[in-house]
Amino acid sequence: MPRTQLTRIPEKGSTDLAELHRLLADVYVAHVGFVDEGGHPVVIPTAVARDGDRLLIHGSTGSRWMRTLAAGAAACVSVTALDGLVVARSAFESSIRYRSAVCFGRFTPVTEGTEQGLELLTERLLPGRNAEVRPSTAKELAATLLLAMPLDQWSLKVSDGWPEDEAADIAGDAWAGVVPLTVTAGAPLPAPDLRPGIEVPASVWALSGRSSG
Amino acid sequence: MPRTQLTRIPEKGSTDLAELHRLLADVYVAHVGFVDEGGHPVVIPTAVARDGDRLLIHGSTGSRWMRTLAAGAAACVSVTALDGLVVARSAFESSIRYRSAVCFGRFTPVTEGTEQGLELLTERLLPGRNAEVRPSTAKELAATLLLAMPLDQWSLKVSDGWPEDEAADIAGDAWAGVVPLTVTAGAPLPAPDLRPGIEVPASVWALSGRSSG
Repeated sequence: MPRTQLTRIPEKGSTDLAELHRLLADVYVAHVGFVDEGGHPVVIPTAVARDGDRLLIHGSTGSRWMRTLAAGAAACVSVTALDGLVVARSAFESSIRYRSAVCFGRFTPVTEGTEQGLELLTERLLPGRNAEVRPSTAKELAATLLLAMPLDQWSLKVSDGWPEDEAADIAGDAWAGVVPLTVTAGAPLPAPDLRPGIEVPASVWALSGRSSG
Repeated sequence: MPRTQLTRIPEKGSTDLAELHRLLADVYVAHVGFVDEGGHPVVIPTAVARDGDRLLIHGSTGSRWMRTLAAGAAACVSVTALDGLVVARSAFESSIRYRSAVCFGRFTPVTEGTEQGLELLTERLLPGRNAEVRPSTAKELAATLLLAMPLDQWSLKVSDGWPEDEAADIAGDAWAGVVPLTVTAGAPLPAPDLRPGIEVPASVWALSGRSSG
């Protein structure tokens, strides 16, 4: 497989929709960029979920940056998974194994199916959790802004290769390889105000100890 | 400690420089936003390192987005660490434990101390690696663009608390707590073209099995 570096060309441009979907299923957070009133770029991290052929994000109706996006500002949603460190025989050839999607478009408020959209966001963070908690109240829904952006303009870059050192370096004594990186969920910590006797639910058990890219 | 949510206010604004430095020591990658020629926002992930009171990034001299930044485009560097999932008794109150810095400014090319700057970037990914590899060649340095941005305009948000459920929910039967998330380095994988007899170096051993936030 071709190696590609995080900040140097060449990079493997991929149009593989399935790979994009896998990436979106692996990350918790996207970095959303837009241009503020003053013409300056702003980049904010936020939870993201895919709903078919669109991306969903949510926030408070009181959030200024959410309102900017809701008003139709041009947006760039950058989604990145770090899969490993590529340790080459030289610093120059060392890099990162990663998957990166950069999606362009504009968000619009979701006015139908809002509850289902919010459930998708919960499901992305903690699969199965929706079935364990009460439904959202009308007040909670009214305080929440759910935005969707079509997933139709995007580019995907995948770096999944090995060090590509010069022949002279390969003949030398330096080690080369990859150190895999994973995001790991640890043992659940009960809230200080948790009532005694309430067991850790299935959704949390399923997550803890599981690793993802 | 006050809980803060990723996409909902209130958020705890922190001006704690030490906390910012800790965050920058914990992450491998930043998301850099800028406005392209067409006026559209673009957000690109790239390795980042702190050099005193400035941020360093690097890339190929042939990279278009690096050249845009080098030319002095206004930039926003967003740096995020995910520390855990805040599992509340309701979906609404569930959120993420995170640390997020948003830094504003403009990059300029580093023309003095370039090698030291590049070594810092290597050191951030793999502490001790510089001592194990040959120095960069003049050709490699000529192909690399190192950019610096002053770290003087930034905001930091830290969510490190517990679920803050309504009293009625606390009295109910739903579990609440936090699932910690860590980035874990796995066992090193030797490159397919690694010559026999070359041992895994100290820098890689030190990283593998270590977790970071």
